[in-house]
Amino acid sequence: MSGRFITFEGVEGAGKTTVLNYIYEELHRQGYDVIHTREPGGIEISEKIREVILNPEHTAMDGRTEALLYAAARRQHLVERVIPALNEGKIVLCDRFIDSSLAYQGYARGLGIDEVYQVNEFAIENCMPDVTVLFELDPEVGLRRIDDHKGREQNRLDLENINFHRKVADAYQMLKNRFPDRIRTISAEKPQEDVQQECLDLVQSYLS
Amino acid sequence: MSGRFITFEGVEGAGKTTVLNYIYEELHRQGYDVIHTREPGGIEISEKIREVILNPEHTAMDGRTEALLYAAARRQHLVERVIPALNEGKIVLCDRFIDSSLAYQGYARGLGIDEVYQVNEFAIENCMPDVTVLFELDPEVGLRRIDDHKGREQNRLDLENINFHRKVADAYQMLKNRFPDRIRTISAEKPQEDVQQECLDLVQSYLS
Repeated sequence: MSGRFITFEGVEGAGKTTVLNYIYEELHRQGYDVIHTREPGGIEISEKIREVILNPEHTAMDGRTEALLYAAARRQHLVERVIPALNEGKIVLCDRFIDSSLAYQGYARGLGIDEVYQVNEFAIENCMPDVTVLFELDPEVGLRRIDDHKGREQNRLDLENINFHRKVADAYQMLKNRFPDRIRTISAEKPQEDVQQECLDLVQSYLS
Repeated sequence: MSGRFITFEGVEGAGKTTVLNYIYEELHRQGYDVIHTREPGGIEISEKIREVILNPEHTAMDGRTEALLYAAARRQHLVERVIPALNEGKIVLCDRFIDSSLAYQGYARGLGIDEVYQVNEFAIENCMPDVTVLFELDPEVGLRRIDDHKGREQNRLDLENINFHRKVADAYQMLKNRFPDRIRTISAEKPQEDVQQECLDLVQSYLS
């Protein structure tokens, strides 16, 4: 695989998606062969799996079931979308990947980071991201931003309480220490334009 | 958990389901507190997962995606149905369980028995079957029986070729050697009534 696989992570409301759109547009404008995706990414099988995960009626869903479903959706998206693009030498920008499962299911839901990592190793084999940009933000600030953004539909995960999101933020700190070569951090507390520029600089310095 | 967890395995067309119905009726008649189930077993989340797995349009499904989805459906069925029954001291008869994934995905699809076992360990934690009855049958005989049984709807797995089903049969032999204390075998080549009686004797001798 000759492409580059870059993933973006962080708590809810860190502005990840907006920044990612900006990075994509800028790299594209500069002539890079780049795609922008997120799970399930329009892959039919992954979309169907995602519907099962996010259905608000599925309150009986066990944490391990959820972790396995995320890993399944990830696998299919990887096989159908990410790996073909990497094989064509493209830069793949992916909104959330394995670290989200380690943080949300592994730590915040208490399943164990090592156990969830093992399941995800089965899902992704040796296709780990080359670089991961982690947006750091106080989870309470992030959740307030979501509440203010009336247009966004709430899903089951948004409804989790603040303690859960604080655990997610703690988990990302642990992952940063565990994968220091892969994970680079950016503070998302600053104004959006500063965050965008800092993130673009980071990605460009990696690519050059 | 004070109940007993008994699973039933074998290639397609071994008559497993019919024999299992008989065993259930007999144990029930004899006053045992027994339930009879199979994945997804009417558990809504597992049913939804199963729909994704068996949809004939999902020809792009990767083998690892499939294995993760089976593990997810298994987990939810276990948590919602099997474990509560075992906690109430019931005998749980389950049509297919972990060994099916080890045989179908692990060996026949070539994902590796050890790797699929690891994913399933995550799904079932320490809830392995107490006893597993393996129905042994030449897979070609099994497939012919299915063809003859016009009423049965074919699904994606039935359409796999005979080589695949031969690998499944080989895998069950390996599993028998790997888990000699748990897996007991019964030849399904004999007339149905003989198979039923032999299986009932085996289960009763285990329960007494």
